Amino acid sequence: MSPLLHPDRLFPADPSARAVARRLYGEVEALPIVSPHGHTDPRWYARNAPFPDPAKLFVVPDHYVFRMLYSQGIPLEKLGVPRSDGGETEQDGRAIWRLFAANYHLFRGTPTRLWLDHAFATLFGLGERLCAENADVTYDLIAGKLEQDAFRPRALFERFNIEVIATTESPLDDLAAHAEIRDSGWSGRVVTAYRPDPVVDPEFEGFSANLARFGELTGEDTFSWSGYLEAHRRRRAFFKTYGATSTDHGHPTAATFDLPREEAQALFRRVTGNAPVSAGDAELFRGQMLTEMARMSLEDGLVMQIHPGAVRNHNGQVFARYGRDKGADIPSPTEYVRALKPLLDRFGNAPELTLILFTLDETTYARELAPLAGHYPALRLGPAWWFHDSPEGMKRFRAMTTETAGFYNTVGFNDDTRAFPSIPARHDVARRIDCGFLAELVTEHRLDEDEAVEVARDLAYGLAKKAYRL
Amino acid sequence: MSPLLHPDRLFPADPSARAVARRLYGEVEALPIVSPHGHTDPRWYARNAPFPDPAKLFVVPDHYVFRMLYSQGIPLEKLGVPRSDGGETEQDGRAIWRLFAANYHLFRGTPTRLWLDHAFATLFGLGERLCAENADVTYDLIAGKLEQDAFRPRALFERFNIEVIATTESPLDDLAAHAEIRDSGWSGRVVTAYRPDPVVDPEFEGFSANLARFGELTGEDTFSWSGYLEAHRRRRAFFKTYGATSTDHGHPTAATFDLPREEAQALFRRVTGNAPVSAGDAELFRGQMLTEMARMSLEDGLVMQIHPGAVRNHNGQVFARYGRDKGADIPSPTEYVRALKPLLDRFGNAPELTLILFTLDETTYARELAPLAGHYPALRLGPAWWFHDSPEGMKRFRAMTTETAGFYNTVGFNDDTRAFPSIPARHDVARRIDCGFLAELVTEHRLDEDEAVEVARDLAYGLAKKAYRL
Amino acid sequence: MSPLLHPDRLFPADPSARAVARRLYGEVEALPIVSPHGHTDPRWYARNAPFPDPAKLFVVPDHYVFRMLYSQGIPLEKLGVPRSDGGETEQDGRAIWRLFAANYHLFRGTPTRLWLDHAFATLFGLGERLCAENADVTYDLIAGKLEQDAFRPRALFERFNIEVIATTESPLDDLAAHAEIRDSGWSGRVVTAYRPDPVVDPEFEGFSANLARFGELTGEDTFSWSGYLEAHRRRRAFFKTYGATSTDHGHPTAATFDLPREEAQALFRRVTGNAPVSAGDAELFRGQMLTEMARMSLEDGLVMQIHPGAVRNHNGQVFARYGRDKGADIPSPTEYVRALKPLLDRFGNAPELTLILFTLDETTYARELAPLAGHYPALRLGPAWWFHDSPEGMKRFRAMTTETAGFYNTVGFNDDTRAFPSIPARHDVARRIDCGFLAELVTEHRLDEDEAVEVARDLAYGLAKKAYRL
Repeated sequence: MSPLLHPDRLFPADPSARAVARRLYGEVEALPIVSPHGHTDPRWYARNAPFPDPAKLFVVPDHYVFRMLYSQGIPLEKLGVPRSDGGETEQDGRAIWRLFAANYHLFRGTPTRLWLDHAFATLFGLGERLCAENADVTYDLIAGKLEQDAFRPRALFERFNIEVIATTESPLDDLAAHAEIRDSGWSGRVVTAYRPDPVVDPEFEGFSANLARFGELTGEDTFSWSGYLEAHRRRRAFFKTYGATSTDHGHPTAATFDLPREEAQALFRRVTGNAPVSAGDAELFRGQMLTEMARMSLEDGLVMQIHPGAVRNHNGQVFARYGRDKGADIPSPTEYVRALKPLLDRFGNAPELTLILFTLDETTYARELAPLAGHYPALRLGPAWWFHDSPEGMKRFRAMTTETAGFYNTVGFNDDTRAFPSIPARHDVARRIDCGFLAELVTEHRLDEDEAVEVARDLAYGLAKKAYRL
Repeated sequence: MSPLLHPDRLFPADPSARAVARRLYGEVEALPIVSPHGHTDPRWYARNAPFPDPAKLFVVPDHYVFRMLYSQGIPLEKLGVPRSDGGETEQDGRAIWRLFAANYHLFRGTPTRLWLDHAFATLFGLGERLCAENADVTYDLIAGKLEQDAFRPRALFERFNIEVIATTESPLDDLAAHAEIRDSGWSGRVVTAYRPDPVVDPEFEGFSANLARFGELTGEDTFSWSGYLEAHRRRRAFFKTYGATSTDHGHPTAATFDLPREEAQALFRRVTGNAPVSAGDAELFRGQMLTEMARMSLEDGLVMQIHPGAVRNHNGQVFARYGRDKGADIPSPTEYVRALKPLLDRFGNAPELTLILFTLDETTYARELAPLAGHYPALRLGPAWWFHDSPEGMKRFRAMTTETAGFYNTVGFNDDTRAFPSIPARHDVARRIDCGFLAELVTEHRLDEDEAVEVARDLAYGLAKKAYRL
Repeated sequence: MSPLLHPDRLFPADPSARAVARRLYGEVEALPIVSPHGHTDPRWYARNAPFPDPAKLFVVPDHYVFRMLYSQGIPLEKLGVPRSDGGETEQDGRAIWRLFAANYHLFRGTPTRLWLDHAFATLFGLGERLCAENADVTYDLIAGKLEQDAFRPRALFERFNIEVIATTESPLDDLAAHAEIRDSGWSGRVVTAYRPDPVVDPEFEGFSANLARFGELTGEDTFSWSGYLEAHRRRRAFFKTYGATSTDHGHPTAATFDLPREEAQALFRRVTGNAPVSAGDAELFRGQMLTEMARMSLEDGLVMQIHPGAVRNHNGQVFARYGRDKGADIPSPTEYVRALKPLLDRFGNAPELTLILFTLDETTYARELAPLAGHYPALRLGPAWWFHDSPEGMKRFRAMTTETAGFYNTVGFNDDTRAFPSIPARHDVARRIDCGFLAELVTEHRLDEDEAVEVARDLAYGLAKKAYRL
């Protein structure tokens, strides 16, 4: 065991609680990974090409990493982040790695540090903390391993003990990479998920062109309300042939609406017309589409996920210079009780529907989300998300939802990542924190240990399979 | 001691803190129960009839229980919850009990589980966890005991060591059950509390008919502003003759207003007129009435309680099919600082007034409620309420209010329940959690143990008596 | 060591975490105090007169103390708080002290208790808890010491091991006390800070007269937009000659604006004109001025601090009778993500700017502030503020900000106090809590102990010096 990975890491400090946590973790440590929601690139599994150098694997694409470095005044160019205008950025992986290593102390106390140390230790055998002094040695060590076949995507997938992983695609995606995977005969189970934001959000870049392409792909008249809805039905069916069991919706708010057909049709005409779409209409349309998607889910069985509450691209200068997803998405207060009412009034009592709610606003855990999920048959709570997918964030999630919603209205863990080497680390953190939480309940005699074992296995494995129908 | 009830349950895991908690709990464990706010049925104490079968005692009337079962897809009909249209529901207590027992795992980690296990163990001597396999045996055991005299309401009241319990009645209630109790010569102290929502909230079902009845009961012209206020004064005085020491107000928000007399009168005419009442006027009238009630409290000494922030009957289908109080009330964000200002500007500096604030929005504990209660002489903080009346909820309440408001601006515990057998369990949980909280302060040398003993006794007993003038 | 001060106070209860906390604290205990933000009176250091009696040192001027006593019904007059109308108040220090001592139990569980006990024990050698019985003895003891030279401000300053302390002055202050200090040849380092609210907030009492005085002091036409801005530049430069390294802004909200020059000029004319200033214009002007101040900070290097979110003078009666700062300022919900965007769009990417954010709304720690500070180079997070400057408040600050913002986007501790004798206690509490937090990370193997030592020293000393450029 590398000194970077203490066997008791993340367990409660109290010796009796720690002993229980160890036993519970022993029951779940080796369970396969079920990853029902994430953003890895299906081409990795399709083509099985080696990953590039250490910097391009760990620094350049990981917004958790470069946002922290940027916040301390390090220009993104020096970290190799590509510029929208094609301007010059650092291309030398070793130079980027040195800068990263010299600033590794910035990640103290963050989950990024835990994920990185886990990957460094378990995949590359690092025995000491990354720092300026060992930057070159570690770079060479990792770069060398990345060239080996055992470090290609499929080998890692198997080594990670992934039972199934979901990627996320737009309805406009042809799922060619998924077809390649299927046709390759490889046994790894990679499924897609239906993320229709580009054709559901009138404020999405290129919405109108997206609709046109949506029509070409489906053969439907996607500029008529009924043809547009039918196109969704067809495309969802197509996604199901590539294993999809879920849809995902990344809206600014959790607003839903349930308009009469005529009003919905008129709204559709407005958002697809030539006049600029008002902010109110855009919100109304996104909200109406959540209810439409719920209706389709009752027909075709796809599980719905709502991921609301991010103010995207908050930093105007960064957006202009480097584009989307550069660490400048910031959470904001999110309301659920009134927002979800129209959809819930229509479909909330249907046990056949599964609607999984996420939040970036932790104040809603105990106040809104747990009371809603502890009542409506259709609702489940997704795990602690994004900035909150961390030891303290996960503890707060359990502490603030369990007493009202219980464990069985939650759905296990999502890694939600495009950082492939971090997947085992993320699941491991979740398992350790959940076992620690359960161990504290056992130690305080709020739960018996035999029950805690059952719950631990459900949180680590069973609930995700069941909720996502995998 | 039943294995369901470990003597150290809910105490901190750390051995030194646990040892202190045990000592503190030893000082308060046997104190009588003061229950200044709750919803038990006074007819139980008046008539002293046996409780019906186990399902009708523990499942059918308890919205904490059936909301969780419902959230997992179990129809309320199968749980015996009556339908508004008189439609068929399960009547067989044993069938309901089996369904409940088979799903007992859903309550893992919830306070419901703690309350139920406490009642099962202390009242009925259950020695093992409820489950599908022992459903019949436990049903028979409990049903058998419920037939015994020792399990009738008065016997249980005495066994529970209840010094005083408050029920809650509408001004339209004739307090006949309270009269029966008084006339019976039984020594149990049961007092009423004045809950005027049906004649204060213009949006309450039957508001106008309620006002008419209010007039009949008081002999006042309740359709004139002065007569209406006088009717309140009379009815409050009548409630006081049945032991009332408090009023209670369950409003959607904490809004208060302090209108000039002419404006208040004009508002009263609008909300009692023939035209539909606007949402704004309804809110204004409820808020004005809180200030009027405070004024009357200064005259007659009744303590005020405000319970704001629930969105009632959120689930339209459940409300239509089963009516109110079916687990579909959901908390929402609640603001206090601006909302209470009009009332506080008028009466907040009066030490003779006691106004007890509750919340379903925990974000207000440290931000608004503790700063307000730590300044205004009239304000006190009610305990963690409803969904937050749980181990973690109570810990958050103390952790987030004590540093700014201290212990002496809080009022001890409320069980706030209609689930009679859960009352000792609820007080026991509160006493254990408070002792644990104090034990941690002692262990971290923030408080001396002799002080902690005093505080523990105040939190368990003294503060409730003092704040509620019981 | 006085029994009032256990050497392990505030450390985690768990023995292994406590052992680590002790070691970490051993590394920082003796570090000098850097106090970059506070409200002590520079005349104390200038004149070095003895402090008056115990009541006038500990009770009369400390709103934490008298707000709690007032909340329990003790009139402010009895505590010697001066009335605006010059009406009678208690003048006898001993009488005030007795009342305070008899109610010392009200402070159980509050930080005030910790601060007071620390000062009583370390400065005056008290060996037992203050109470009614020892009120006279302690009064005499403290009063006696206050007459000694060793208890004058400069002697205490040196005894407290203060390396540098900042006071806060209005641009209208002539900094005469600071000049006296400098001219006295005393080696203590006391610097000023630029707090321009009286000439930046159109709703500040006497705004127009303040502007006129601002013009006299600077020789600029402060009723023209360009002259007004130039006056700020000159006055900031003047403050810098007295050591200022920072500005401070106490606004009702965090709103910022970045208007085109013409609009800003027109706005300035409106807020300085004869017509009453609308609430909207006042907010707009304060927000515009934050952006102007950021622009000047980029020119002259002063660090900016924003302290938003207090509803000042909530209690109308108390304000009328006793004036400002009488414990009646109440926090309210505060939004940052949209509010700061205009300023951040303009200057947020400048690593040369340091903008330190504070909050009274803890819900923003994890949701808004940590994500913002973990991205924008210009942003840093100030420590837990005001009501949250307490053991639990500090723990919540670290637990909710570290995982997203890390330690290095925070700025160490502020005591933010006018209670001079509490300064060592406040820094000691912060050091202990931070060491405890780090110790838990070490014990849970999330951080190595050698790193924790480095971080502990940075939190106690290094970060404040660096962030405030001291």
